[in-house]
Formats: sequence, structure tokens, C-alpha cells
Amino acid sequence: MSTSRFAGVVPPLVTPFAPDGALDVASFERLIESQIAAGVDGLFVLGSSGEVGFLTDAVRSEVLREAVRIAAGRVPVLAGVNDMSTSRVVEQVRLAEFAGVDAVVATVPFYVRPSLEEIEAHFRTVAASTALPLFAYDVPVRVHVKLGHELLVRLGVEGVLAGVKDSSGDDVGFRRLVAANRAAGSPLVLFTGHEIVVDGALLAGADGVVPGLGNVDPASYVRLVAAARAGDWAEAKRIQDGLASLFEIVFQAQGVSGEAAGLGAFKTALQTLGVIESNRMAHPVPALEGETVERIRAIVEESGLLVR
Amino acid sequence: MSTSRFAGVVPPLVTPFAPDGALDVASFERLIESQIAAGVDGLFVLGSSGEVGFLTDAVRSEVLREAVRIAAGRVPVLAGVNDMSTSRVVEQVRLAEFAGVDAVVATVPFYVRPSLEEIEAHFRTVAASTALPLFAYDVPVRVHVKLGHELLVRLGVEGVLAGVKDSSGDDVGFRRLVAANRAAGSPLVLFTGHEIVVDGALLAGADGVVPGLGNVDPASYVRLVAAARAGDWAEAKRIQDGLASLFEIVFQAQGVSGEAAGLGAFKTALQTLGVIESNRMAHPVPALEGETVERIRAIVEESGLLVR
Amino acid sequence: MSTSRFAGVVPPLVTPFAPDGALDVASFERLIESQIAAGVDGLFVLGSSGEVGFLTDAVRSEVLREAVRIAAGRVPVLAGVNDMSTSRVVEQVRLAEFAGVDAVVATVPFYVRPSLEEIEAHFRTVAASTALPLFAYDVPVRVHVKLGHELLVRLGVEGVLAGVKDSSGDDVGFRRLVAANRAAGSPLVLFTGHEIVVDGALLAGADGVVPGLGNVDPASYVRLVAAARAGDWAEAKRIQDGLASLFEIVFQAQGVSGEAAGLGAFKTALQTLGVIESNRMAHPVPALEGETVERIRAIVEESGLLVR
Amino acid sequence: MSTSRFAGVVPPLVTPFAPDGALDVASFERLIESQIAAGVDGLFVLGSSGEVGFLTDAVRSEVLREAVRIAAGRVPVLAGVNDMSTSRVVEQVRLAEFAGVDAVVATVPFYVRPSLEEIEAHFRTVAASTALPLFAYDVPVRVHVKLGHELLVRLGVEGVLAGVKDSSGDDVGFRRLVAANRAAGSPLVLFTGHEIVVDGALLAGADGVVPGLGNVDPASYVRLVAAARAGDWAEAKRIQDGLASLFEIVFQAQGVSGEAAGLGAFKTALQTLGVIESNRMAHPVPALEGETVERIRAIVEESGLLVR
Repeated sequence: MSTSRFAGVVPPLVTPFAPDGALDVASFERLIESQIAAGVDGLFVLGSSGEVGFLTDAVRSEVLREAVRIAAGRVPVLAGVNDMSTSRVVEQVRLAEFAGVDAVVATVPFYVRPSLEEIEAHFRTVAASTALPLFAYDVPVRVHVKLGHELLVRLGVEGVLAGVKDSSGDDVGFRRLVAANRAAGSPLVLFTGHEIVVDGALLAGADGVVPGLGNVDPASYVRLVAAARAGDWAEAKRIQDGLASLFEIVFQAQGVSGEAAGLGAFKTALQTLGVIESNRMAHPVPALEGETVERIRAIVEESGLLVR
Repeated sequence: MSTSRFAGVVPPLVTPFAPDGALDVASFERLIESQIAAGVDGLFVLGSSGEVGFLTDAVRSEVLREAVRIAAGRVPVLAGVNDMSTSRVVEQVRLAEFAGVDAVVATVPFYVRPSLEEIEAHFRTVAASTALPLFAYDVPVRVHVKLGHELLVRLGVEGVLAGVKDSSGDDVGFRRLVAANRAAGSPLVLFTGHEIVVDGALLAGADGVVPGLGNVDPASYVRLVAAARAGDWAEAKRIQDGLASLFEIVFQAQGVSGEAAGLGAFKTALQTLGVIESNRMAHPVPALEGETVERIRAIVEESGLLVR
Repeated sequence: MSTSRFAGVVPPLVTPFAPDGALDVASFERLIESQIAAGVDGLFVLGSSGEVGFLTDAVRSEVLREAVRIAAGRVPVLAGVNDMSTSRVVEQVRLAEFAGVDAVVATVPFYVRPSLEEIEAHFRTVAASTALPLFAYDVPVRVHVKLGHELLVRLGVEGVLAGVKDSSGDDVGFRRLVAANRAAGSPLVLFTGHEIVVDGALLAGADGVVPGLGNVDPASYVRLVAAARAGDWAEAKRIQDGLASLFEIVFQAQGVSGEAAGLGAFKTALQTLGVIESNRMAHPVPALEGETVERIRAIVEESGLLVR
Repeated sequence: MSTSRFAGVVPPLVTPFAPDGALDVASFERLIESQIAAGVDGLFVLGSSGEVGFLTDAVRSEVLREAVRIAAGRVPVLAGVNDMSTSRVVEQVRLAEFAGVDAVVATVPFYVRPSLEEIEAHFRTVAASTALPLFAYDVPVRVHVKLGHELLVRLGVEGVLAGVKDSSGDDVGFRRLVAANRAAGSPLVLFTGHEIVVDGALLAGADGVVPGLGNVDPASYVRLVAAARAGDWAEAKRIQDGLASLFEIVFQAQGVSGEAAGLGAFKTALQTLGVIESNRMAHPVPALEGETVERIRAIVEESGLLVR
């Protein structure tokens, strides 16, 4: 595995909200402290799990600034710079740089339907606009493009990309990316965005993991990665199976959007654990409530997290 | 057909660029004057045809301001307010209001994958943020959601939506929308985004059309709508068939993105006609060149537009 | 419009079933007689509307044989020859030829994911296997491939294809197909599979229509096509709007498959009209029942079909 | 791992063809003998890798009969019973039973777009039609439906399904299926259809594997499964990485269908190894040729398979 300062467990932090939609700074501080206490290797803010798509630039800036302040150099802070296209992403990079983050993470342009050549030019332009390391975020379920390993490794070799966060769910593609990256001298740090098949991704050669569920149980992911690094795959699998049971929280809500169900479950669990004050979501996504919340709490209780 | 001031022919204007990526104001002025001279009923700026997704807020604001200045009240100006989600769209509405446009046009949130309930709340929040009429832009090929007629008509009856721009390509859905809207007292103005089956859409009951090809040949769309309003469907079809021949310009480029091929063809044709100075596209989309440009010019010449 | 013997109104007949799953011959006879009495120009059996996918070869053969016997040469019989790939389709063509049909209608291979070259070879092989005219059935919602006009017209010019049944819902593609076919000397007869935008398709240049709703109200489609041929587009639109109201029967069922809802609605309406005995579907598709049936009957009653 | 007689390595055999499109029995015999010599646990014939979609019932029957004859009880024979819908699948089961196979493998209906309830009824009807164990084949890329674990495990508990062949590529879904199956007492035998992430699937809890690449290198898959069963995951990964290098043969062809590229590569490699006589494909799929064949042979040579 990579010894890059960006490898290991880097959870994509949720964004806790105050009643007026602003950042709930106290909750965010508890969240980040709980992550660092659990031993994570980095923090990823303004990812999809951070509801980045819903936030104005003002709120995004506050999230960036506070994350950097709270982390205080103890672990690196990676920041999502999500927007529709190149020139707008470059502006997001400015916000991230200004706040003092350690790396930026960009998707391909969306809404505008780029060609492969335009995607390559996009990453080149974004990288050229900053001295920060740039990670490519491969998330076809949102941007409707799958990044191929040829392009990624080539951009890694040239120093355009520092790494990839693979949330494609395409494990065959990921294995081929790992192989191509290794054959090229491992220029890229490769993160899997998986949550319940991380053991397999590590066995395949992932350098790290960016699990949304890591908001709720960062310690288990830290132990999972440690077991994998030690070659104790039976233990890695055991921990992964436990996390898979916990992950059932995201399947409890019915008839709501994926954001409401999944991110809402993370926030509800964090509220149950006393880490954040409210499971409030960005407008117009409704917070989970009623029996859904009860079922999520029951799963969290069964996991043993409450008594740790 | 509707007598709303927003009905009829409302082309989605391309955005001509200066070499530095800023708005080419002189070209934009010639474009708008050519539209008004041709008799269009309105101008739609910052739509997908205007490369809105590629533009920073600074350039968007310049486009809005110049369009309002040049139109000078002769025809209404509608403005796209495209962004990823509700709070960001509301900020775009602020820019459009500040520039003095007459109506705004919004898609559903994208990247964030909203539920039907969240889409409804989205339009309600955007409408509540402004006194301007709000049009829903139905464009599943970009946002991966198709708007149903139940929601649209309901929001029309309640005064949330003033109309719909239907770029779904789903003509069965459009016919059902027309019927449902009529049954509800026609609260919505219904625009088709089609270019080469506009005659059929008008026969089905469309109130107007927002054709990208209208950048190149607005006069023919004006005559097409006039023929349809007069009940002369044979003439409407004749004009439509001519426009369909001209529309072949968008199929000339190979191996490039849809933006480069389609919008690039409109810009190349406008350059050929002397309306705009350059067929330059927003970075990183390449301008069309070489034989593709020659083929597009040949089609434009064959159309007779050059000698009008 | 084409003067081919295959133009005009050619409804895709439903297959009425006896309690044991065999063909209900008496109902099928009443259905065909009602079609011919209404003035249709042909009959299409074993299409998707005929539940062809659910039928064994034995039942398919019975449908073919009975259709030819009952039609008795008064109108041509076209037969679907649906199967997964070329060699199996050729065997279906044998069944159709043996029964004495007048033309066959084939989709591209499905399940096996052919390339464009393989699709072309497929149609060539099927055509070479029979003296019957071959129609291509373009139905991407089922086979996940859209046929392009270049291939279709080329195969028309070479005599491989006699025509196309376009159920793609892509009206822009259909308009381009019409133009390309006309430019090539109109080798293909072009049917639209639409039901509620047939007026627009005829205005665009369709030679005929294969409407599932034609099972229920063939006479209106006959009058619609006659009005269009006479250039009376206002009347065509009026008839079409009435058919669009009737078409709402297919949207009454909730939570069932598209087959159960759509074909089930046609069968329920035909049962209401006394044409077929039961609205039974092929196993395992459930027949519509309860309030859904009541709503469909109410729509049929409102249409005035019962008192004609 | 399961001790079911159907667990372990069960390659989906390609179907070698004679020049006239019939089964090349001698090649098929060499293929099966090479599989059994390598220690596979079963043979799967008439799967997608066996080009089942392209074969007439006559050829399918020959494949079934010869597979059973050649295997001669040394390993179980599983047979694909692919067809469009229930009644037709039941007829395919008859062919398989008649030939004497040990189990059948069925997809959901395709082309006809079933609901979840219809899918459940489908599997119940197929299972009720035979005394043979029934496996569900989950292959959304071909049938456009993903099977959920709730339905599968429920049908396992009730004895309708004996197992699942998961070719969905959805490893999160597979992990959840494994967990749900275990929680229900492991009624289902769970095969992964993966080829290059089999180590991860075994770590997750797969009972066996059905790898198309197992046609070419069955011995490595046998060793991979043995290493996993022994808990030697480092060795399992090492073998898997070797197989991943070999798997690059399926990515060598450009501009052809997935069938031509993938199955064509398996056949070309088997021809190179002297196992089958020709890399001929079912009409209208072209056999690989020229430089593509050279590149595949080079990869096979580099793998060391030629000298074993």
C-alpha cells in the first residue's frame, strides 16, 4: 500500500446544519474530533456525503474554513470542488485554496456532457490552476460518465492527477486501474468509495478508503485497514461483516430520495451517538423521522457503538 | 394557442465568445438584432444552447445585462438559472433579477438526485424567491429526470409555474401535458424544445417553440408558427421540412461531444452568415474546424439563407 | 403517402386466451371481424401487443394459422417473428410462412447485444431466408438498440427491408428517416407505432400506423388516416385528441408491469365492448381486476364506443 | 463455504462450432476433458458464454446431450435454459431434462419487461415444472433487471431456488445477498460470475465461481478457490492477479460487439492452446482475426499456459 500522506481512511464528512441552514459549527467540531480520535488518516469535506451539491458558496466556504481550523494540521483535509464545468470548478478551487485545504477532489463536468478529450482538458486545466494535489472523483451514478484507467493513469504519470476516488461500483474496472497504476510505477493514490466490500478492494490493492459510513464508525474502518495491512484477511473480513450489518441503516427509509435515505441515515446515527445535534438535511431534502429513525437507532444499538 | 406574452418563437441564444472567453458583445448585439428583425416573440439566454453550464457567474451576469440592454423591451428576455440545487438556483435568480430579465427558466436539481417531493419543493422555493414568472425546463437527457404532467399542471394551477419548456423528446408525454393543461384551464404556457417536429408539436397544441436552430434561421420558425396559427398545416410542414434539411448541420461533426457538434454547428452557421465573428466555444469544448465547417457551410448555402 | 398494400392502419392484434392458456379462437375471430368491418388496411399478429414473447411456438402457430384463415385474404396479415437471434428468428419465419402470412416483422437480436455490423447481417440473413417482405421493428425500449436511418434506408434500397415499424418514440429520428427514405426514392414503407401523436407522424410523412389502441377503436384510426390523406389536419387532430382521451385506459393500473397495465387495458376494453370474452393475460402476467377495470370501463363508456 | 455438490469452480463452457454451424463435438470433448483434468467442480453449458442466445433448439439439444455424455457423471452438468418468458423457458427445461443434466439455470424473462411479482411467479412456475435444482441467473446487463436479495433468499428458503449465479457486477448487492442468505440458514448456493475480483467475492462469502476465463485457465481458478478455502488470501490474490493479466485478452478487439470481443477472445485462446479447432462464432458474430488474434496469442504466451 501507498505511503502517501493521503492514503488510509479518509471519511467523507457529513455537514451538520443549524436550524437556519448554516453550518452547525459545534457539531462539526465534535464530528471532526471523533474522527481524529478514532485514528483516521484524513478528512474529506464537501463531498457528496457533505451535501456539497446543496450548498451555496458562502456555506461551502464556512465548511472549508472550519474544517481546516479544527483539523489544525493533525490530519490532511481534502475538499470537494464540485461544479458543472471547468471554469466554475476552478472558482471552487480558489475557495478551497483560500481556506487552506491540503488537496482538492473534482468530478468530470456534468449537465454539459463532455467527450473524453474534453474530460482530459478539464482535469488538465483544473490541475494547472492550483499547486494543490488534485484527485479525480469517479462517480458515474451522479455524472453519468465512467472514467477509464488509461486516461487516469496517463494523467497520473504526467503529474496532473495525484489520485482517484473510485465511487463507480465497478470493481472490475478498479482492479484494472490498480494493475495499470502499478505497471506505471504507482503514480496515483487509489481510494475506494465502497463501504461494505472494502476488504475486497484492499485485497485488490486499494491504497485507502473514503467510506460514508466512516462518519458513524471510523474506528472500525481504521482497524479494517490495519488488519489488511498486516495481512490478516480473516480479521479484515470479520470487521467488514460487522460494518455491513451497520450499513443496513441506509436501507431503512422508503419512498424518499437516495440522499434523504443514505445521508439521512448517517446523520441520524451520528445524532443517536451524540456527535451531532440534529439530523437536519439541506433544503429541500427532508430529515428522517418516525419509525425510520427508530429502526436506524436499533441498528446502531445492536452494533455496540453506543457503549464503546 | 396562448396569448401569453411568452408564447410563439423564443430561440435559445448561443453565447458568442471573445478570444479571452468573455462575451463578444458586438456579435451578441448582431445576433439579437437579427432575431428581433426576424420577428421572434422573445429571447431565451443562458439556456443549454447558451453554454450556460460552462460560464462563471461573472460571464453569466454580463450575458444577462447585455441581453436586457440590447432587447430594450422590444421582446421579453427569459433567462436560464441553471445550477445544481435549490439554494444555488435561487442565487442565480438573484443575478437574473438584478439584470432585469422578464422570466426565469429552471431545471430540476441535478447531480443530487431528488425525489418527486423534493422536486416539487424545489420549484416552490425558487418561485417563492422571486416575482418573476418561473418556467420549468424539462430536459432529462441532462438532468436524468422526466417531469410528469400531474406535477407540472398542479404547480401551474397554484401559480408556482408560468410554463414549461419541454426538451424531453417525449412527444407522448407532451400530448398528455397539453391535454391535462387544457383540462385545468390552461394555466401553463407550453413550449416545445423540438427543432424538426415543431409542426407536429404545434398541431398537438404547443403554445410556442424554443428551437436552437432558431439562432440560424429565426424567420422560418416565425413563418412556421404563423402558418400553424392560420391552420395552414401543409405550409407549416413545408417550412418544417426545409428547417429539417438545415438541421443536418448538427450531424456533420464526428467524434466530438454533443455540445461541440450541435452548438458548434449553430455557431459555425452564424459565422458563415456574418452574424457572429467566431465559432469559438467555451473551454474545454473545441471549435469546429476543417471539413466539418465546410460541410456545414455547404448546407447553409443550399438552404438559401445567404441570399436572403 | 405510399400506395403499398401494407400502408394505412394495421393494428397489432392482442391475443385472446382461453382458460387453459390456448388461443380463444372465437374471440380472436370476433376481434378480426371487428377490425375488418372498421376498415383497417392490414392485421399485425404476434407483435408485442399480441404478447408474442410469452407464447410457445405451438400457440404462435395457432395464432398465425387462425389469423390467415379468418382474414381470408380480405386484408394482408403481417406476423411478428420475435426471438433472441438470427437462427432462431429464421425458424420463426418458417412458422409464419407455413401459416401463409403476407409479411414478417423482425426486431434486432436481443439478450445477445449485437454490433451494428451484426444487426445488418441479421436482417440480410432473415430476408434471404424467405420470399416474404421483411419489416424491421424498431423498439429500443425492449431490445435496447435504436436503429439509425442510414442502415434502414440502405437496406431498403437493396431490397432487404420492405419497411419499418417505428416504436422508438424518437420522433426526431423518424422525421430524419422519412426524409432519407424520400431522398432515396421511398423504398421503405414507414409505419409509426405511436398511438396519440399519429397526426403529427402523418404530417411528418408516415405511410401508416400500427396502434395498439387500434384494437379498441380501429374506426377512429381509419378516419384519422383518411382525414390526413385528405389534408384535413384540423379533423385529424380532433380525432387524435379523442383517441388520446381513450388512451388514458393504459395509465389506470398501478404497481403492475407495463404489459399488465397496457395490454391488460386493451383486453379489458375489448371485453367491455363484447369483442373478446376475457381480459386474461399470458402467465405470469395477472389480468386487471377490481377498481382498475371499473376505471377503464368508465373511460370506454365516456368515449362513446359502446353506443356506436 | 458450501459443501453443496454445485459449489466451487464451474466454468461456463464456450460452444465450439464446425464450419456448418453445428457443434464441433471433438473440440467440445477436448474442452470438457481439459476442464475435468484441471479439477473443476462442475460444467455450465448453454450459458451466455456458450452463445446460447444464438443457438436453435436442435443445436442446444446436441450441446446438452454431448456434455452429459462426455462428463459421464464425473462432475455435475448445469444447463442454461434461456428464453424470453416462462412458458418458453419451461420448454427449454424439458430439453435439458431429456438430455440428463443435473441442474438448470434461468434468467428472468426478457423483452417482455416483468414486474417483481411476475418474476417471482416465473421462478415458481419453472421450478414447479421440474425435479432438477433451479439456479437464478442474475445478469442485468442482458435482461435489464437486477434481482434483489429479499426475493432470492425467500425463494431459497421455500426450496424454489437452489442457488444464484450473480453476474450483476454489483458487489455491494452480492455482499448483502451473502449476509441475508447466511442469516436464513444458507439455503442458496451463491456463485459469482466475476473473473478478476473472485478473490474478493470469495472473501465476501461466495460458494463458487462461474468464470468465462475458466475456459482458458481452469487450473488457476481451482487453485484460487483452494487457496481461499485454506485461508491463504495472499496466495489467492497472487493467483487472481495472474488471471487478471490473462483477462486482458477480452479487451484486445476494437469496434466489434462484446460477444465478438469477449467470447471470441476465449475461443481464440483455446484455439491457441490446441483445445478447440476453430475460434468460429455463431452467425452473425464474426470470428476474431488478424492483429487482434496476434495480441491475444501474445498474452496467452506470456501467461505461461502454453508450456504447462
